[in-house]
Amino acid sequence: MIYPETINNLIECYKKLPGIGEKTAERMALYSLELDQEIIDLFVQSLTNLKTKIKRCKICNNLSQDDICSICASDGRDHNVICVVEEPKNVFQFEKIGSYRGLYHVLDGLISPLENINPEDINLDSLIKRIDEESIKEVIIAVKPSVEGETTALYISKILEGKKVTISKIAHGVPLGADMDYVDALTLEMALEERKNITSNSEE
Amino acid sequence: MIYPETINNLIECYKKLPGIGEKTAERMALYSLELDQEIIDLFVQSLTNLKTKIKRCKICNNLSQDDICSICASDGRDHNVICVVEEPKNVFQFEKIGSYRGLYHVLDGLISPLENINPEDINLDSLIKRIDEESIKEVIIAVKPSVEGETTALYISKILEGKKVTISKIAHGVPLGADMDYVDALTLEMALEERKNITSNSEE
Repeated sequence: MIYPETINNLIECYKKLPGIGEKTAERMALYSLELDQEIIDLFVQSLTNLKTKIKRCKICNNLSQDDICSICASDGRDHNVICVVEEPKNVFQFEKIGSYRGLYHVLDGLISPLENINPEDINLDSLIKRIDEESIKEVIIAVKPSVEGETTALYISKILEGKKVTISKIAHGVPLGADMDYVDALTLEMALEERKNITSNSEE
Repeated sequence: MIYPETINNLIECYKKLPGIGEKTAERMALYSLELDQEIIDLFVQSLTNLKTKIKRCKICNNLSQDDICSICASDGRDHNVICVVEEPKNVFQFEKIGSYRGLYHVLDGLISPLENINPEDINLDSLIKRIDEESIKEVIIAVKPSVEGETTALYISKILEGKKVTISKIAHGVPLGADMDYVDALTLEMALEERKNITSNSEE
């Protein structure tokens, strides 16, 4: 053990983060020694709160510090549109565009028979419930254009058949096979604008 | 504010680390949500202990959890040789080679008239004291080959003139102008082996 125990432990923690190897973790740990006490305090407090204060919104399943997230609770949002995404981070990607004013629904996964992820394993029941109970006019499916994404989109359009709701899918402006993490805001905005209906059950 | 406050704060903390930008900090913060509770606990504990448990060794000024670091306290080390380095992290670089068995002395800076860092601003007095009081036979100067490094090496060899100690300098196997951070262990080992005396005041 070359470093004092505390530094060794901190290096091990930094190494758990994505894309951080031994050398970078060492630099980060030694640099951490020079951080101001108030930053260290905020760091400790944030990490401590992470598991206790961050929960899921009871309506849309997005990350939230309250029972209902700020988006679902907002009067300024369009409560007639739901954008269905795979993970909470996708919500934040759409929020960065700034132009989308509707609501979200976080699936927490995509249907994948190969990985044994079935429709009941993702957050679909509550989506159907929302469409039955809320005044939803449009469901925008915004999942990645992979086999799992297409399967999930198809499944959603099937289970919503017969309901008075327009189902659309974001345009394939998102490069095929790309990780949603690396899509820039402009591409996402285009994809949102060019969304096309895949089925329309509304009476308008 | 797009993210819940706790996540926002965590992103700000990660951004304080070297080489971490907005996007990487976001990824790290969202990923942190998925870390095991025991890792979070270790993370919190390490950060908390950083400012309280990590101090400087009273002899060599290296980072340590005790008053005297494990190297200075070890019977297995050669207490006749001191390797003088700029920063604590340089000690860990030499320790990784594994072949150096002497002691260290951490200067915490190099003499730099341009930046107004004078000999009294770095940890030199205690080096002279150690040479007067301990049984030191050789002082190896292992600072980077920059103007500041050369000035510091020259200054050390001047103030140790007349004392019964051999002063050497690590060989210029270290690429000129390089940051000590990025020198690999092999280059450092070569540089150690090929050190050459710049003045010899020992009677042997």
